[in-house]
Amino acid sequence: MDDKTAVPSFEIPKTCKAGVVVNEGPNFSVRVEEVPVPEPGPDEVLLKLNITGLCYSDIHYMLGDLGIGTMAANGVRSPGHEGAGVVVKVGSNVKNMKVGDRGGVKPMWDTCGSCEMCWSDTETHCSKSVSTGFQVAGTYQQYITSPARYMSPIPDGVPDEIAAPIMCSASTIYGSLEQSQLQAGNWAVFPGGGGGVGIQGVQLARAMGMRPIAIDTGEAKRKLCLEMGAEHFVDFRETKDVVAEVVRLTDGLGAHGVFVTAPQAYKDAVALTGRRVKSKVMCIGLPPAGSCFLGAEPGAIIFKRLVISGTLVGSMRDTDRALDFARRGLLKPIYEKWPIDKLPEAVEKLRRNEVPGRCIVDFNL
Amino acid sequence: MDDKTAVPSFEIPKTCKAGVVVNEGPNFSVRVEEVPVPEPGPDEVLLKLNITGLCYSDIHYMLGDLGIGTMAANGVRSPGHEGAGVVVKVGSNVKNMKVGDRGGVKPMWDTCGSCEMCWSDTETHCSKSVSTGFQVAGTYQQYITSPARYMSPIPDGVPDEIAAPIMCSASTIYGSLEQSQLQAGNWAVFPGGGGGVGIQGVQLARAMGMRPIAIDTGEAKRKLCLEMGAEHFVDFRETKDVVAEVVRLTDGLGAHGVFVTAPQAYKDAVALTGRRVKSKVMCIGLPPAGSCFLGAEPGAIIFKRLVISGTLVGSMRDTDRALDFARRGLLKPIYEKWPIDKLPEAVEKLRRNEVPGRCIVDFNL
Amino acid sequence: MDDKTAVPSFEIPKTCKAGVVVNEGPNFSVRVEEVPVPEPGPDEVLLKLNITGLCYSDIHYMLGDLGIGTMAANGVRSPGHEGAGVVVKVGSNVKNMKVGDRGGVKPMWDTCGSCEMCWSDTETHCSKSVSTGFQVAGTYQQYITSPARYMSPIPDGVPDEIAAPIMCSASTIYGSLEQSQLQAGNWAVFPGGGGGVGIQGVQLARAMGMRPIAIDTGEAKRKLCLEMGAEHFVDFRETKDVVAEVVRLTDGLGAHGVFVTAPQAYKDAVALTGRRVKSKVMCIGLPPAGSCFLGAEPGAIIFKRLVISGTLVGSMRDTDRALDFARRGLLKPIYEKWPIDKLPEAVEKLRRNEVPGRCIVDFNL
Amino acid sequence: MDDKTAVPSFEIPKTCKAGVVVNEGPNFSVRVEEVPVPEPGPDEVLLKLNITGLCYSDIHYMLGDLGIGTMAANGVRSPGHEGAGVVVKVGSNVKNMKVGDRGGVKPMWDTCGSCEMCWSDTETHCSKSVSTGFQVAGTYQQYITSPARYMSPIPDGVPDEIAAPIMCSASTIYGSLEQSQLQAGNWAVFPGGGGGVGIQGVQLARAMGMRPIAIDTGEAKRKLCLEMGAEHFVDFRETKDVVAEVVRLTDGLGAHGVFVTAPQAYKDAVALTGRRVKSKVMCIGLPPAGSCFLGAEPGAIIFKRLVISGTLVGSMRDTDRALDFARRGLLKPIYEKWPIDKLPEAVEKLRRNEVPGRCIVDFNL
Repeated sequence: MDDKTAVPSFEIPKTCKAGVVVNEGPNFSVRVEEVPVPEPGPDEVLLKLNITGLCYSDIHYMLGDLGIGTMAANGVRSPGHEGAGVVVKVGSNVKNMKVGDRGGVKPMWDTCGSCEMCWSDTETHCSKSVSTGFQVAGTYQQYITSPARYMSPIPDGVPDEIAAPIMCSASTIYGSLEQSQLQAGNWAVFPGGGGGVGIQGVQLARAMGMRPIAIDTGEAKRKLCLEMGAEHFVDFRETKDVVAEVVRLTDGLGAHGVFVTAPQAYKDAVALTGRRVKSKVMCIGLPPAGSCFLGAEPGAIIFKRLVISGTLVGSMRDTDRALDFARRGLLKPIYEKWPIDKLPEAVEKLRRNEVPGRCIVDFNL
Repeated sequence: MDDKTAVPSFEIPKTCKAGVVVNEGPNFSVRVEEVPVPEPGPDEVLLKLNITGLCYSDIHYMLGDLGIGTMAANGVRSPGHEGAGVVVKVGSNVKNMKVGDRGGVKPMWDTCGSCEMCWSDTETHCSKSVSTGFQVAGTYQQYITSPARYMSPIPDGVPDEIAAPIMCSASTIYGSLEQSQLQAGNWAVFPGGGGGVGIQGVQLARAMGMRPIAIDTGEAKRKLCLEMGAEHFVDFRETKDVVAEVVRLTDGLGAHGVFVTAPQAYKDAVALTGRRVKSKVMCIGLPPAGSCFLGAEPGAIIFKRLVISGTLVGSMRDTDRALDFARRGLLKPIYEKWPIDKLPEAVEKLRRNEVPGRCIVDFNL
Repeated sequence: MDDKTAVPSFEIPKTCKAGVVVNEGPNFSVRVEEVPVPEPGPDEVLLKLNITGLCYSDIHYMLGDLGIGTMAANGVRSPGHEGAGVVVKVGSNVKNMKVGDRGGVKPMWDTCGSCEMCWSDTETHCSKSVSTGFQVAGTYQQYITSPARYMSPIPDGVPDEIAAPIMCSASTIYGSLEQSQLQAGNWAVFPGGGGGVGIQGVQLARAMGMRPIAIDTGEAKRKLCLEMGAEHFVDFRETKDVVAEVVRLTDGLGAHGVFVTAPQAYKDAVALTGRRVKSKVMCIGLPPAGSCFLGAEPGAIIFKRLVISGTLVGSMRDTDRALDFARRGLLKPIYEKWPIDKLPEAVEKLRRNEVPGRCIVDFNL
Repeated sequence: MDDKTAVPSFEIPKTCKAGVVVNEGPNFSVRVEEVPVPEPGPDEVLLKLNITGLCYSDIHYMLGDLGIGTMAANGVRSPGHEGAGVVVKVGSNVKNMKVGDRGGVKPMWDTCGSCEMCWSDTETHCSKSVSTGFQVAGTYQQYITSPARYMSPIPDGVPDEIAAPIMCSASTIYGSLEQSQLQAGNWAVFPGGGGGVGIQGVQLARAMGMRPIAIDTGEAKRKLCLEMGAEHFVDFRETKDVVAEVVRLTDGLGAHGVFVTAPQAYKDAVALTGRRVKSKVMCIGLPPAGSCFLGAEPGAIIFKRLVISGTLVGSMRDTDRALDFARRGLLKPIYEKWPIDKLPEAVEKLRRNEVPGRCIVDFNL
């Protein structure tokens, strides 16, 4: 740090606003409270968030339907795992960050940094990883701590409104697109392409030279998807046989890759690959435990050399790459913005699956 | 061809012995008959086979239970798709082969040579491929034709007894091992490792530096598998919880890769990968259509980054590589040999799943 | 072939026009003559070319400066290896092509189809490959034969003017881009980006989501490169330190990949990668034998994990992929067209390196 | 940590023995001194080393001939970058290590853990990496600190004598073998295969199913290399044309991969790949700056699709993998052991290139 540079200084309050879960479980609700501002540990920074995104996984965590335990058991009251803000305080050992740096918090709050998963750009699978908003306080709380090593720097030119949802939705779908090994010129099909993750997949696939097809419904989503780069939009309400239509559009062969972000789409995912050899089905959206199954007859897998795999959440690298596409203007913001005091209403709307694109909350409104 | 070399010359009979299917369908049987020796086309060679392997797919073809039609509809009476012999006649355009060359016939009798699948070492998925012993006469017939371009040359030092089963079983499992991207040091688990394909997988995995574990039953198979390079043998009859035992043996994490050659093993295939992240399940054995299903909950696929895929049959390159391992003594023959007149009995034994290793028929006995 | 479809029929003349080399060697010239129309072999087709591209390799072949022998020694008088036209006759064994099909001829006229190189999308390295316009008559001759299996089908919507240069220049640079493993978002630098191969590299890199930078000179080339998708154009005559400028433009780190199509650019190729770790230098343009050298100090290679490799000419698959980009309008024609009788003048202009983009000859003008 | 387990406790002295450089530069010498035992920082551990390996890079650092500055400028007196020992104290924030754990120190003492290089198993190229024994005190000093996150755990069954040299030599050559993408069955050629790094390359290549050929001289090295798994040994003193001999041994085609650990071998490295298409030359040994050059004519690179690249030092993952091969008994110790007081003599012997295999120093002798 150049000591001639004026370091911004921040007045840190004792308490801050936070959306907290009440009555965790099937009948949960969310309330906005004042909670204590935490103190960063020696290797951590304190972030003042400007924006948090809302993700359907937050709903899962509060419902407790993933079969992985409760927030309460971890002493956590605020969910949320995609936040963007500014560093207002740094721990005593922190060298790579300073007060005033911009940063984002992702679905994984920390990983060990020292295992096979962490070494190989798959640190989100680290067995010691800590989930933001589930195992530690999440981004529904304005001031949160973050390990300095695992915070994602946000580059100039990417406002917090865009950066926050990238932390989960765009980074994850970017990772999945890369993991799928689809090539430029290949057909990438997004069931639910008009939703929060899907619409970022459409844009990123386009920016990577692929040919995106969105499956969703309604005129608004059709317009949005086509504007964002989809070559085709298939309205699942108006199309008699969605699978047949996708196969027809993809040169009669089927998708090269299907990216399933919505649980209800697992049903047709394999069928969308038609008879395309070496096609890929990527699982992304997490359904409630026990609610669905993905697979095929071994013969179908063998004859088509089908590949089925899945992507958890975006890694540091995925996030960095997705932010770079945003910086270049290739990943546009598709969101509706709510003030912090309306967070409970925003959560209810998301719970009812009524949010087009992504829903974000501004802590300064 | 050096004109100072004496070219062997072969007397070609008018007829030859062939195992032919009788009463194709659930109650088929096999009979040995004299059939006409075919004439090679301009781009083909005529092969005099010394050995044919017997593969359970032959049974499927004769039973007609794969849901892909009948042999009769293709005018075919002799199954068989792994044969080794010698070129006794060449077609008028053939330049790359000459009389006296040794060669093998594979599950694919021909492919177009001019499509995306053919260009990329996956020609077995060519949409114009022709299946040996199903769409054209197979290796149960002593004299058969083969496209010169697609015949696999057999190197010195690999006798026909070893070369014949390589054409299908070893080349396929070699292809699957490579396709799985397992690395040296990884655990490769073979349910049915004592069977015809499995035992070649055990040997090849070992030769590639992997750590094979065979799951099968009986003292004979235990001995064989361990001799052929398996680090562990799990007897599924004597082991209370096979999955738990495999997970225990694989550092408590589960297999890096599971190679399913026997239909009954699809049931536990995913479980054998335990909680190992990035593990692979490779489908190889073809079950009767509609008889089983392979998959998992999307959440399980996502959290483990599991990869499910499949391998059809060995390509030209897989065959070439597998023959090279055999030439170096790393792929040993595990077979029982029958004379041609006992072919019907050998087929019955195979049908009853009573063959340890591979079953081959010698046309000269 | 549907027998209800009217098959076009073509009157085949006894002779046709051909550009032939005179006085092969340092002082060669080209003359247009009438030569006999050849007869296709059993596995070949006869193509009536509408367009041939001119490539600097033609000049090398006629100069005989590559150290690989002479055309005369092969009995060849017409160079040329990128032609597009229509099948007017098929050999007796040909099944995959029919009269009236459109097709292109590439730098490799044929390969064996039956070796490790041919199986793995690198058939241009087949040890039995035959070079068009060097080992057999090339595309400066209007009617030429082509192995049916190795002719590249031209899809609807790609006129012969565009298809012909794709056979060599675009397919090769496509192959190199893929081989380099650069990703969407990476900086791809094209020294000589305004030339025949470079400008197709610029377009394809853009279509694949990469960020192309062209190095060349002159206002016309600047305009062309920027229109075709280059993010930056560096004029090597007007820029004091081209390497420093490229490093500055590429985030201060240097190119992710450098694609060398012009021999004079080998000199700076490694320097253009700056201090970017894992950068790639791809050799494409063939310099005269003994004229230059590419490499680095081992320490520089080690510290940067630099990768140096090379691309010969486009494979069947590369050609197919490049044609698909053209079909989608992402690979535009940049050429000047000459009538067949002016072929000798076009060759002289190319020899003097004065052709912007690609030079093609229309046999029908 | 199981609280029933007795945690070992260590008495930590105030000073310890260390080999330190005297008169750094062309005429350096090494002296053993008592130096203060350092205090670990909050994220560090204090290691008591039992063994340090000696590597020729130590000589380079003390000579100052790599063109990267001096040890003195960094305040460093002890070189050494491959050490194995036990954790005797942990910093206040350390969670993943405890007193009594075994651990090793590698050529990189630390990396940032938070950049593209660190995320992708190439953290040794991190721009903030710190070199052990050059930028911080090295393993010639018995007690040194290590960042807890970047220390390599040593598994049971691998004694410190074997583990220490793995930290640099074996991990690096393992990384290079993997990076080369050679497959099981491929020819891996090791010029200097009887040396410290080469002999570990021979063993690891064998364990990965490759076919190692060692080039070196003398009966002792011949015997050693063949025992350790080399299929052939080429004595460069007794063989008239080493390149021709290697080409002959490799099926007449040349090496699939050449792994250059000794600077004098760069000269012939490309030639050893003969006419093998897609062969690899991997640079590993660091020559003095300005002393040599590696490359080829672009035409040679293009026609052979040659790949030239380099490997710096082993990553965390490479080290982990190499240790696993050692644990399985596939990487045997080839070293001569010296007591700490003879360290100066051992260094002189290494400087004169007279050490067969690896040279290690035992701090307890």
